[in-house]
Amino acid sequence: MLILGIESSAVSASAAITRDGALLGQCCLKSGLTHSQTLLPMAEELLRHTGTALGDLDAVAVAQGPGSFTGVRIGVATAKGLCWGADKPAIGVSTLEAMARGNGQCAPEGSLICCAMDARRGQVYNALFRYASGVPERKCADRAISLEELAEEMRGETAPVYVLGDGAVKCAGFLRQAGFDVLLAPEAVREQNAWGVCLAAAGKTPADAAALLPVYLRLSQAERERQERMRG
Amino acid sequence: MLILGIESSAVSASAAITRDGALLGQCCLKSGLTHSQTLLPMAEELLRHTGTALGDLDAVAVAQGPGSFTGVRIGVATAKGLCWGADKPAIGVSTLEAMARGNGQCAPEGSLICCAMDARRGQVYNALFRYASGVPERKCADRAISLEELAEEMRGETAPVYVLGDGAVKCAGFLRQAGFDVLLAPEAVREQNAWGVCLAAAGKTPADAAALLPVYLRLSQAERERQERMRG
Repeated sequence: MLILGIESSAVSASAAITRDGALLGQCCLKSGLTHSQTLLPMAEELLRHTGTALGDLDAVAVAQGPGSFTGVRIGVATAKGLCWGADKPAIGVSTLEAMARGNGQCAPEGSLICCAMDARRGQVYNALFRYASGVPERKCADRAISLEELAEEMRGETAPVYVLGDGAVKCAGFLRQAGFDVLLAPEAVREQNAWGVCLAAAGKTPADAAALLPVYLRLSQAERERQERMRG
Repeated sequence: MLILGIESSAVSASAAITRDGALLGQCCLKSGLTHSQTLLPMAEELLRHTGTALGDLDAVAVAQGPGSFTGVRIGVATAKGLCWGADKPAIGVSTLEAMARGNGQCAPEGSLICCAMDARRGQVYNALFRYASGVPERKCADRAISLEELAEEMRGETAPVYVLGDGAVKCAGFLRQAGFDVLLAPEAVREQNAWGVCLAAAGKTPADAAALLPVYLRLSQAERERQERMRG
């Protein structure tokens, strides 16, 4: 299965092409330029450099959230646009599952993989996984959660906790203080990328890209403020 | 320090830009197309996508070997060309050191990092490292060595041996048979890349790119055959 993967849920943006999980190419950018400028040209160049036509793809996979609202929207919109133009199906995957599937490979055997993206407002976007027979087994649904609640929920965990994501430094510090055996993922594999998106997409059934929706897990600031105004 | 790194010593080719070690962008290709077609356009696009001019760079770093003779030559030639055009200095780094510096970060604390690139003719290009205070400490010079000799040399090693590189699967299998506690680096970090080249270049003094030479460690097949003919 030939998949173009797209990841733009945080400060980095990346595109990758895999054939049956094997990487044919990946580009990652963390330059501070907006994803709306860089993501589509990067994906197109990657197709060209790997000698792949859009029409050759079996599907476009995209990290549909959680993450930065703007980043997730750009990723999903880019995937929809590519699919619409080439009449291809899409596969939406959880940003956190992509992280666990890609970088979580580097966690020690038996450890608990703790994905932590900075969600601001005192929370992280989080999910927990544990590898079993080479596949990350999900231990809870994606959610926005405070570090206090996370530590409370993980109480009794004795295996090393392998912390990933752009909220990993803060989360690892907190969990260490709380007495857990914490391993901070090294920088080389700390943040999610499009290869992970492709890996997480394997085994999922491609569907109509028009039906693909971002997963924010929370209301946007604008919606929150509107609700507060309505209440007031 | 703003560095463009280039790595094309094996089947993959990659380019990366780092500022003081932090990744601004990286592109990796493993599509089977020749590095001579893809490496330079990839580097140029990366510069454009990160908003970097060649003139902004402090140096171009390149994996100067060991590795595929053709691949190393393309990488070194590309680095020389970019440096010559922009009047920039170059930093040549060992492919194996780049691998240890980049992907070796993922090795467990205290483990022995065993870089193993397939050198054919029953050998691997190899060097051994151990992380100390966040930096890989070199345990031997780069060399071409048979797996038998390598196992013999490592005899008595009790720490886990973390095996990296495109010869890792074969090497890990051999060392496991020989009784070592072996960890095969997961696919996500098994092979060297240009980010590692940038990291290995940090702390080295940029020099005149014209003086940069490939490091093959062995005679090429053509040279070997010529020598045999001369002897005969």
